[in-house]
Amino acid sequence: METGVPVGEVYLVGAGPGAADLLTLRALRLMQAVDVVVYDRLVGQGVLDLLPATVERIFVGKMRDRHVCPQAGINRLLVDLARAGKRVLRLKGGDPFIFGRGGEELESLAAAGIPFQVVPGVTAATGCAAYAGIPLTHREHAQTLVFVTGHTKDGEPDLDWPTLARPGQTLVVYMGIKALGSLCRRLIEHGLPATTPAALIENGTYDHQQVVSATLATLPARAPDPRLAGPTLIVVGAVVALGRQLGWFSGAGVPPGAALSDADGPAGLDGASLDGGAPGASG
Amino acid sequence: METGVPVGEVYLVGAGPGAADLLTLRALRLMQAVDVVVYDRLVGQGVLDLLPATVERIFVGKMRDRHVCPQAGINRLLVDLARAGKRVLRLKGGDPFIFGRGGEELESLAAAGIPFQVVPGVTAATGCAAYAGIPLTHREHAQTLVFVTGHTKDGEPDLDWPTLARPGQTLVVYMGIKALGSLCRRLIEHGLPATTPAALIENGTYDHQQVVSATLATLPARAPDPRLAGPTLIVVGAVVALGRQLGWFSGAGVPPGAALSDADGPAGLDGASLDGGAPGASG
Repeated sequence: METGVPVGEVYLVGAGPGAADLLTLRALRLMQAVDVVVYDRLVGQGVLDLLPATVERIFVGKMRDRHVCPQAGINRLLVDLARAGKRVLRLKGGDPFIFGRGGEELESLAAAGIPFQVVPGVTAATGCAAYAGIPLTHREHAQTLVFVTGHTKDGEPDLDWPTLARPGQTLVVYMGIKALGSLCRRLIEHGLPATTPAALIENGTYDHQQVVSATLATLPARAPDPRLAGPTLIVVGAVVALGRQLGWFSGAGVPPGAALSDADGPAGLDGASLDGGAPGASG
Repeated sequence: METGVPVGEVYLVGAGPGAADLLTLRALRLMQAVDVVVYDRLVGQGVLDLLPATVERIFVGKMRDRHVCPQAGINRLLVDLARAGKRVLRLKGGDPFIFGRGGEELESLAAAGIPFQVVPGVTAATGCAAYAGIPLTHREHAQTLVFVTGHTKDGEPDLDWPTLARPGQTLVVYMGIKALGSLCRRLIEHGLPATTPAALIENGTYDHQQVVSATLATLPARAPDPRLAGPTLIVVGAVVALGRQLGWFSGAGVPPGAALSDADGPAGLDGASLDGGAPGASG
């Protein structure tokens, strides 16, 4: 297979934070143009449903603790598929360059001489913030925005606590639910007031999104069981309190009579995907 | 007009980093469903071209220094349009909750009792990074990602320098070109090596994207004239060096024989918007 076949190409594409309509136009076009998709656990089912039936699907999703398919295996798979002449869609939840290990996959492709392109996606932080009504930056509350990952092998994240526990900034923690207690405790130890607003957003942008809005002191006791929770994002900072006023998304099954559900709306509008909004009803 | 008319709704929507095909599906659908769009200078022309001709357009773009229309006026305009029964698209470059002042606009709407929804967009950092081949996080190089704005009234940004000058993180500066010299100098003064990789991405994701990849010491001298430059983003950190290997986007007019430009490609693909890639050709 590897001789005489023109080499394929790999498209490293962000699938966005969950809801299918937060995919980019470019991602959708590529989904319709490839031979095979290699995807992770965090890619929404609604996104996968947009793939043509003819596209081969390979799941390499990793549970957070037990890695079914280690990264080296994924790197190898992408090279092998491209060398077999395939047009390969490497689809990742969120954005491929924010805690997605996309860089490592591209290094492997570059070393093998495989052509590639990268398509950014709506990262979980902006997706969850938009649907929870939490402005990540705000002139009066947060001029700096910090993203870290709480994912660790032993449950105790190795983070630069003095830097994270600064006033005037918003901290977003990806994959941090298992370390939530330790995270909140250490931020307080390093100087953030225990009353600092903190929220946990579970299944963000999905119809079943849940927002728990509390403080550094009270959030851990109110969080869902990490073993049962869907994908979660933690946001810490004064802006979190604005979500109580600015939350608008109420999830599925609540037609709020929004303008877009009117019968006189334009054709082609998918009511189900646009009618999530009820002002003031934070999920 | 304000009595007897059902109140409208405002959709605060991120238009993405520039290229029209980095718009989300949800944003595109809303563009086709509204009565009026209120937009900023950073919204790409290609995005505006996707609006139906029947949609009224109101430009409230602010030049970086002279504010043609102050924020209070925009807040007021949105309320007034909604009270007149309009479905209003408030379209902002990038993501509305990252240095977009979207929070302030929503606070004004909430105070006036106007219903709203928020649609996240691909923020400039992820858009520019994807098209420059710079992974913003990387297991070996950067576990923390920091966004700040370099926009200031007097050209000297008031930032928390010790926090920004930490090892093991990637720093992204929005709207920082006018403060570039001061920014690089202060990061060095606060402990980052002068040899730290640093890049300036101008007109990111557009066909005429330009990437200047240098170091903290050498970037200011190689940057374009701020008075003539398009929108720019600054990225500082070890990951910037990976862009030399992982850059793939060569901009317009260079059909690289990518798989997607093949004559046997699927119908409906817009070659012009997908054929930007030439491996190894960093813009």
